[in-house]
Amino acid sequence: MLRYLTAGESHGRSLVAIVEGMPAGLDIEASDIDRDLARRQGGYGRGARMAIEKDKVLLNSGVRHGQTLGSPVALIVANRDWENWHGRMSEERVTPKEAGAKVTRPRPGHADLTGVLKYARGDARDILERSSARETAVRVAAGALAKRLLSEFGIDIWSWVREIGGVDYTEGKESPEKLHSLAEASDVRCPDQKVTQRMKRRIDQLKKRGDSLGGIFRVVATGVPPGLGSHVQWDRKLDGRLAMALMSVQAIKSVEVGMGAEVGRLPGSKVHDEIFYGTASRRDAEFWPPKKRFYRKTNNAGGIEGGMSNGEHVVLSAAMKPIPTLYKPLSSVDMKTKKGFEASVERSDVCAVPAASVVGEAVVAFELAGLFLDKFGGDSIAEIKRNYKGYLAQIGRF
Amino acid sequence: MLRYLTAGESHGRSLVAIVEGMPAGLDIEASDIDRDLARRQGGYGRGARMAIEKDKVLLNSGVRHGQTLGSPVALIVANRDWENWHGRMSEERVTPKEAGAKVTRPRPGHADLTGVLKYARGDARDILERSSARETAVRVAAGALAKRLLSEFGIDIWSWVREIGGVDYTEGKESPEKLHSLAEASDVRCPDQKVTQRMKRRIDQLKKRGDSLGGIFRVVATGVPPGLGSHVQWDRKLDGRLAMALMSVQAIKSVEVGMGAEVGRLPGSKVHDEIFYGTASRRDAEFWPPKKRFYRKTNNAGGIEGGMSNGEHVVLSAAMKPIPTLYKPLSSVDMKTKKGFEASVERSDVCAVPAASVVGEAVVAFELAGLFLDKFGGDSIAEIKRNYKGYLAQIGRF
Amino acid sequence: MLRYLTAGESHGRSLVAIVEGMPAGLDIEASDIDRDLARRQGGYGRGARMAIEKDKVLLNSGVRHGQTLGSPVALIVANRDWENWHGRMSEERVTPKEAGAKVTRPRPGHADLTGVLKYARGDARDILERSSARETAVRVAAGALAKRLLSEFGIDIWSWVREIGGVDYTEGKESPEKLHSLAEASDVRCPDQKVTQRMKRRIDQLKKRGDSLGGIFRVVATGVPPGLGSHVQWDRKLDGRLAMALMSVQAIKSVEVGMGAEVGRLPGSKVHDEIFYGTASRRDAEFWPPKKRFYRKTNNAGGIEGGMSNGEHVVLSAAMKPIPTLYKPLSSVDMKTKKGFEASVERSDVCAVPAASVVGEAVVAFELAGLFLDKFGGDSIAEIKRNYKGYLAQIGRF
Amino acid sequence: MLRYLTAGESHGRSLVAIVEGMPAGLDIEASDIDRDLARRQGGYGRGARMAIEKDKVLLNSGVRHGQTLGSPVALIVANRDWENWHGRMSEERVTPKEAGAKVTRPRPGHADLTGVLKYARGDARDILERSSARETAVRVAAGALAKRLLSEFGIDIWSWVREIGGVDYTEGKESPEKLHSLAEASDVRCPDQKVTQRMKRRIDQLKKRGDSLGGIFRVVATGVPPGLGSHVQWDRKLDGRLAMALMSVQAIKSVEVGMGAEVGRLPGSKVHDEIFYGTASRRDAEFWPPKKRFYRKTNNAGGIEGGMSNGEHVVLSAAMKPIPTLYKPLSSVDMKTKKGFEASVERSDVCAVPAASVVGEAVVAFELAGLFLDKFGGDSIAEIKRNYKGYLAQIGRF
Repeated sequence: MLRYLTAGESHGRSLVAIVEGMPAGLDIEASDIDRDLARRQGGYGRGARMAIEKDKVLLNSGVRHGQTLGSPVALIVANRDWENWHGRMSEERVTPKEAGAKVTRPRPGHADLTGVLKYARGDARDILERSSARETAVRVAAGALAKRLLSEFGIDIWSWVREIGGVDYTEGKESPEKLHSLAEASDVRCPDQKVTQRMKRRIDQLKKRGDSLGGIFRVVATGVPPGLGSHVQWDRKLDGRLAMALMSVQAIKSVEVGMGAEVGRLPGSKVHDEIFYGTASRRDAEFWPPKKRFYRKTNNAGGIEGGMSNGEHVVLSAAMKPIPTLYKPLSSVDMKTKKGFEASVERSDVCAVPAASVVGEAVVAFELAGLFLDKFGGDSIAEIKRNYKGYLAQIGRF
Repeated sequence: MLRYLTAGESHGRSLVAIVEGMPAGLDIEASDIDRDLARRQGGYGRGARMAIEKDKVLLNSGVRHGQTLGSPVALIVANRDWENWHGRMSEERVTPKEAGAKVTRPRPGHADLTGVLKYARGDARDILERSSARETAVRVAAGALAKRLLSEFGIDIWSWVREIGGVDYTEGKESPEKLHSLAEASDVRCPDQKVTQRMKRRIDQLKKRGDSLGGIFRVVATGVPPGLGSHVQWDRKLDGRLAMALMSVQAIKSVEVGMGAEVGRLPGSKVHDEIFYGTASRRDAEFWPPKKRFYRKTNNAGGIEGGMSNGEHVVLSAAMKPIPTLYKPLSSVDMKTKKGFEASVERSDVCAVPAASVVGEAVVAFELAGLFLDKFGGDSIAEIKRNYKGYLAQIGRF
Repeated sequence: MLRYLTAGESHGRSLVAIVEGMPAGLDIEASDIDRDLARRQGGYGRGARMAIEKDKVLLNSGVRHGQTLGSPVALIVANRDWENWHGRMSEERVTPKEAGAKVTRPRPGHADLTGVLKYARGDARDILERSSARETAVRVAAGALAKRLLSEFGIDIWSWVREIGGVDYTEGKESPEKLHSLAEASDVRCPDQKVTQRMKRRIDQLKKRGDSLGGIFRVVATGVPPGLGSHVQWDRKLDGRLAMALMSVQAIKSVEVGMGAEVGRLPGSKVHDEIFYGTASRRDAEFWPPKKRFYRKTNNAGGIEGGMSNGEHVVLSAAMKPIPTLYKPLSSVDMKTKKGFEASVERSDVCAVPAASVVGEAVVAFELAGLFLDKFGGDSIAEIKRNYKGYLAQIGRF
Repeated sequence: MLRYLTAGESHGRSLVAIVEGMPAGLDIEASDIDRDLARRQGGYGRGARMAIEKDKVLLNSGVRHGQTLGSPVALIVANRDWENWHGRMSEERVTPKEAGAKVTRPRPGHADLTGVLKYARGDARDILERSSARETAVRVAAGALAKRLLSEFGIDIWSWVREIGGVDYTEGKESPEKLHSLAEASDVRCPDQKVTQRMKRRIDQLKKRGDSLGGIFRVVATGVPPGLGSHVQWDRKLDGRLAMALMSVQAIKSVEVGMGAEVGRLPGSKVHDEIFYGTASRRDAEFWPPKKRFYRKTNNAGGIEGGMSNGEHVVLSAAMKPIPTLYKPLSSVDMKTKKGFEASVERSDVCAVPAASVVGEAVVAFELAGLFLDKFGGDSIAEIKRNYKGYLAQIGRF
């Protein structure tokens, strides 16, 4: 069972994740992870903090001489801003002066108010430091590790942005790999250059107004064999697990599989993907898919039927709400005085959808890797490859 | 920790659920559950099977003299059709004649094909009997138990249908309770009579064409206090948990919280819910909400911020794909011969969205009940009430 | 992940278990399970109830035509005494007369008193019906299923009784299989006939005095390959998991691995098992062990080092306390009046150690099966066999 | 749900634990933890490494200004020896020279051999670095945090050594607190000075012979209220959970509750603890126990009946095997050449039982804290205290 926990505050010393259940023998270098950490920090419309911090991971344990050992991998991402926060974020008691002023003004759209009520805190900083999307840095690190694992088995994770603040983009016939690669060249991670320009203008426009924007991104996994997840129990369904992973990302308010909500509008004859058998690809992949197989010509199901991957691309979308901290202030209430005020700006991003798409890749990769290991067992890459190839041969003979 | 597992095949002897972690002292009668079982069986556009079976639950264990004991509750829902399936579904070896013909023709949109590949079966019946939405009967039973628990604490679950096959409905200012009550009077669980008529006509139309329809339903929980779920760890977020629960329901392809995907289109100033303090309700509820409190005038967040309930109504939507079994056949391939065929009709519902909304209530109730017990602890209703009231007083004094 | 939950009261309708995560394609018949149910009911020194009930399992779901389907297996064991308990154990409200008298006198050594305090009940029957060792019937059923699985891979579970009330037995050089077979011929499941006679006399003696006896049993698993469990995380250690499983059986107060507590007395040179390489067995088993391998001549470690099986027999012992219900009364206090009384006899077994050894087999089998599936993955017996053989070949080439 | 994961190799950079589920508002300082880290490093018979490293914890996250925040607590314990291991333990690829020689000679009694087989490694260092008891340092840190939590509720954890290599000690009538305090003054953590001398002589004797010793320690929890754990499901039983926690500690081979294995020898009338009601203590504790209550005069059950704490002291014993690395060599086999050799000495402790007793305290504390939070819920110390006091009043009124 692959699992992970994260710890760490936004302005604390560092973020930490423990990833438990990684097999031994996986080649991994810090740079494999740092690449995604950098991708997460990019994107048009980000504020000043992204410039300060160039995140780097420390592979603190579970990796030796460039390979995983099977033991838990501890990933540490230092907060480079920490030196400016020693007193305010010290784990030790400090003088009131060092501690700085309490945050008593909860920001709409954040965990601040509910957090102080639930945890009985007098200072919203005790909450917002943890609820911050800064935590996703170390989730991206954990996800990068999962991607490294999946790539050994020919499974890749791609993503791009489909909508920012009403400016939308619809894919053509390009492969996910191609779309991803186009997105990498775009400041807003949109595969289309013209739409990219419109999205950037939209961001500029909102920035001027002191407002912010959300959007929609897509994550696609290719090379996923039939049979990850299971129909037999509610908590083993692939779509359920992926929905939880994506919805657990800060600011996500909607998760869709394949055609998504549109399935509620069209007749069944336009929704269900017919099944064929024959030569579906030009050549055999090393793992999945083979040239000849059961396949679908459409993929409205997004590669998931009956709670299991069906051998087509796994296609997901998620919608992110706008950054809740605006220059243009929102009304809120001081927790102590109960008096209204205009909510303060703690940071200054306008749009974080491109970054969120990278986080989306990470959490999708992690779930897929976990269900992959559940299905194929094994404690070393060699063992898992043998098991996996045996399964592919088995279903090839079906 | 509240948890449940289900077992049972669609045409087997019976469906079984074990609900573990229910506190002692909850009044419960079979009729509390049978009511929801009947609601799940209703709805315009259902086929013949719904008429055969009037589901009834057996409270096999964990309940004595009308009260829970704290021990696991085993819920059993017999399949009344079982007598016609003895041979085909026998747990014992039977003669080939008794066993009946194998199902070798997988239906698009179902688990059939992937299931036989994954589990190495020669008969798709071994898969489809479990992947069938029939399983939701016992999930509804488990959810009805959870609702009974929640209602002790003033938390209620409501639902209605918002869209069927392109015919949509948008709520006005009515309370969730009112909308639910209007929906109960509609064959398609839509609060609006006129829209109901249009939806029914749409169903009739598609039925004539041999086609099927999906739709979108909404589930709302009222009386939910601030602080269920937590921002501190990815797998404890209320929205993530609810997304998994809803997406794990057969045929669901999209889950939205509050405003949902629309958050990707609007600017932050139109999305985030401003915070106020004062008299928000006319009178104190026994539990939540009190008359005077922190509140929001809008609820675009759907009652969830930072992975926690924020004290407003919890609002969710889910989209269901059309019934995949059509009279109008879909192309598929025989698993044995690899030859194409037109996919067979195993059942004849046209639209099951009204039923799905009842299942949606169940799974939402179960997650909320679990997180409620996590937060308030306790092994008896009396203890939990004391703990809960203590918390409400605490946040009232904040 | 293999998991199970049980439900059911001692005098309720029936006991239920759901076993989740069983692979497809395992041959299973009710008689495979009934055999162990009967073994659990045997043993010298049991009271009248054992005569009443001949437990039989119903394979309610997850099994079709004599094979598992991969879907959850629901096991139901009816309580044949139920007809005499309708009123007292009804799930519905009944008249006070039908309900019968409340149990207000907690028995020492039972869950009664703590249970009523924790769950806030006025009637200890609400507790004792669930805490009763009757529940182990359905755990034995779940364990029999796990044994069936393990036996496909050449792993077998054996047990015998080593001590009853001070009369003890020490193994010679016989194989576990032989010792088990000898034990099966003994009324007290002791491999030695003479010791059997002495144990029976001891039981008779204590019965006359109105007293009861506990004892110690051993459970051994043979054919276990190296590498079940893991050293990498505290909750994945094989010994920890087995200790939890055994200690969770009613009345168990001690669990030992291999040499057990004796390791605290001897020097390291007498405790650690030296490692050799060469021909350890006369012939290759179909799975494990092969003729030639790394092996130990001693097995003080009980087959577990570093939290993993090491390829030798897995050897466990557990001590069971005497039946707490004595004819010779123990002092207790009425919960209502707080007055002392002499604790009442609810049942009349004198010694249940032979039965406990059968339960011990079941829980050990279940844990091993779970860790086996974690290591080898797979959804069908064919797939798991392929994976397992691949691993054995891999470590054979090491 | 309180949970923890650890990561880290014995000679890697540092050990890390993430403790998830701690409530907010708990006063905690690094020194509270460092005290136990130092206690773990003490004990007569330890080798050179203990002198090198004075372990100190870094409260990396989840704690601010001396209080927990409710967010996950990341505990980091640096390995002070790391500077000497850079090349051999580097996470990056290094030159063969920097990497040092491979360990191909597995040590009996360790995870080495099984680990390399399971994880397909060519270097036993990849295994032994993680399986090392060095990992217990960070478990002690997690346990110290749990103790800090428990102590807020009047629950304390005590321990002492009962046996080392055949030299044994039996408690008199002293309180656990007194025995613990006497043990703290002993080099071998034995409450009796004379027995301490004999144990030390035994250690000296074995050291001279190049041999090693194990022993038995006891852990006792006082102030535990009735009702932690539950009889209702096998995996919620307090004794099962504690057995797993203790057996998961490196080198433990036996776990006993209360009277332990002795229950298999005595008649029921000598084993079961009779129940009384009245004044059991001289004065009311702030929490548990009150002056007047249900109580037992004996405690053979070790405070656990029916899988639940019964209000008496929770009493556990565990047996540790001798340190497996001896100067006096054990036979083993080179993994590569398959030739026999005399197993090498990697470290030089003779006896680590006193240290193990401190680890035992930690893991027992962690389980109790987890079950305490399960029972009483709550997210802040204030909330949990209110809930707990409510429960104590409730059972006081029973």
